[in-house]
Amino acid sequence: MKKILIIGLGLIGSSIALGIKKAHPEFEILGSDREEVENIAQKRGIIDSKVELVKGAQEADIIILAVPISATLELLKQIATFDLKDGLLITDAGSTKSEIVKLANQLFSGTKVKFIGGHPMVGSHKSGVMAADINLFENAYYVLTEESQELRELLKGLHAKFIILDAKEHDKVTGQVSHFPHILASTLVWQSDDYAKEHPLVKHLAAGGFRDLTRIAEADSLMWTSVLLSNPEITIDRIENFKKQLDGIAQKIANRDSQAIEHFFEEGKKIRQAMEIHKGALPNFYDLFISVPDEKGVVLRVLALLQDFSITNIKINEENREDIHGQLQISFKRAEDLQEACEIIEKATDFTVV
Amino acid sequence: MKKILIIGLGLIGSSIALGIKKAHPEFEILGSDREEVENIAQKRGIIDSKVELVKGAQEADIIILAVPISATLELLKQIATFDLKDGLLITDAGSTKSEIVKLANQLFSGTKVKFIGGHPMVGSHKSGVMAADINLFENAYYVLTEESQELRELLKGLHAKFIILDAKEHDKVTGQVSHFPHILASTLVWQSDDYAKEHPLVKHLAAGGFRDLTRIAEADSLMWTSVLLSNPEITIDRIENFKKQLDGIAQKIANRDSQAIEHFFEEGKKIRQAMEIHKGALPNFYDLFISVPDEKGVVLRVLALLQDFSITNIKINEENREDIHGQLQISFKRAEDLQEACEIIEKATDFTVV
Repeated sequence: MKKILIIGLGLIGSSIALGIKKAHPEFEILGSDREEVENIAQKRGIIDSKVELVKGAQEADIIILAVPISATLELLKQIATFDLKDGLLITDAGSTKSEIVKLANQLFSGTKVKFIGGHPMVGSHKSGVMAADINLFENAYYVLTEESQELRELLKGLHAKFIILDAKEHDKVTGQVSHFPHILASTLVWQSDDYAKEHPLVKHLAAGGFRDLTRIAEADSLMWTSVLLSNPEITIDRIENFKKQLDGIAQKIANRDSQAIEHFFEEGKKIRQAMEIHKGALPNFYDLFISVPDEKGVVLRVLALLQDFSITNIKINEENREDIHGQLQISFKRAEDLQEACEIIEKATDFTVV
Repeated sequence: MKKILIIGLGLIGSSIALGIKKAHPEFEILGSDREEVENIAQKRGIIDSKVELVKGAQEADIIILAVPISATLELLKQIATFDLKDGLLITDAGSTKSEIVKLANQLFSGTKVKFIGGHPMVGSHKSGVMAADINLFENAYYVLTEESQELRELLKGLHAKFIILDAKEHDKVTGQVSHFPHILASTLVWQSDDYAKEHPLVKHLAAGGFRDLTRIAEADSLMWTSVLLSNPEITIDRIENFKKQLDGIAQKIANRDSQAIEHFFEEGKKIRQAMEIHKGALPNFYDLFISVPDEKGVVLRVLALLQDFSITNIKINEENREDIHGQLQISFKRAEDLQEACEIIEKATDFTVV
């Protein structure tokens, strides 16, 4: 029986707790957060007991830090001063890895404490202990900065896809696909705001493409500030590189080189289509697209067929408007449900199912 | 009774035809496209008759060009050589306006033919005459480069929001909110592809933000090439300006100026929230929130009550706890429907409606 201390019982920490408990009911899960959060977590069975930081850290076999990057750095320094168990394993859940792993190595080298960085790559519009969800990590990538059978075993109840990735490599990859895109989105918003001073309709005529590109400009400002400050060199490198890439397409336009511009768009399309991202919306959403006739009662008929399934969203597209892929889109939480629902619809109707 | 010639019976041209026919059943709608397209359009009642270009143009009181930009330019040159009716009005549906309006002014100045540029601002994943949809333009902006009661009257059946916008101003605004974003999206894809050569996980770890930013990188390559080539100076101006804006944020990161970075994200969020785009995915959505017990059949029961309404989306928010009431979000196209649906649900159930 191991004692697991989880520091930070927000969406990530409390969802991890649920996954550990499911796979290892015999483990004791201690939780540390603000008192009201601890109380909720305990009442809902997310943790076994609340504990003070020093006591919990000293008793723990494994510590999971599920707090913002800056708090992770501070906590590591604090924890390093405690009288820790031999063989203690510490991991975290921060969005950047180099700075945290570097500090941990400094603090724990030559001790019997081991630190392995972690980054469960999930996002949610929800947050906090009340949003705890044992399915949050299902099929999502979970980066570990070193191989660890102990962590794989501990976290197996999350059904995440673990990958081992050096901290620096992690920060390069996420710098490109996650941190830098946030800069792009917010910069496009700022640029449009500037331009709107002389061209006010900019604020009114933006449509679907602009909306998609700028959606993440509404993400949490504090979190993304701390991410950039924890990954500054790579972010700046991606900015400088992007400016060069923009020069390339500007030159093609200046040359009125239609073939080169078409290649730019056409190849870009193919590259994107070959990316894993192309597979679907959220990691644990499975979408069924059904072409249904525009008749009264058709949606009801389909839903009646699927009434035993757990459906999270139903989208009805009566229009030709962009961005929507089928006429009736039904989202399931599980791949098996999608498969089974697909068969049911195909058997019971003559609707085209994708 | 007027004769309207529509050249190009794709999604836009054929949807415009449907709108004209509805508001003006007495008008004769002539269509010109490839023969098989004309045949479909005629068979489906989208046009009254197919016609050869010269004959149709010479008989027409109004000509609508609904073809790609380059074809619009070529057709204008051709049409200008015909023996046209006095008072003929020509309009188009191209995504850029300056180049087209400039050419038309050269061709028709001093004649009794009038050209007014048009841009119905809708997009769709569908295309072609088979996708013709009378609701395609409902509540969408429709730019006219000059005021024209004749066009407003002709197109009133589309229920679009007409705005008058000088051709150059149109190209600046759409350059910012539409053309340049396509460059951003494709450039991000190319940059990631380059980076993936040394950091292959770039192709696998991209998630929601990246997916949103790059979605329009899969738009029609030919169309966007012709748009950029028709709006080159403004596009290049936006590229150069964006590079300067990137320098601004790069400097803040280089200075480790957390306050300035946070301001960058926080203000960006506020700017976006103040934009018209923020109102919703589609121009007009009216949302009803219903607290329903988490019981089998509850969604079906609600939908059965609402089966006479035009519903565009149904979202089922599942909570983890069985004793918490789920939220059911139903989106309507019309405010009146929302009001009426609300009353029906309140009368027929004891669910809480928001």
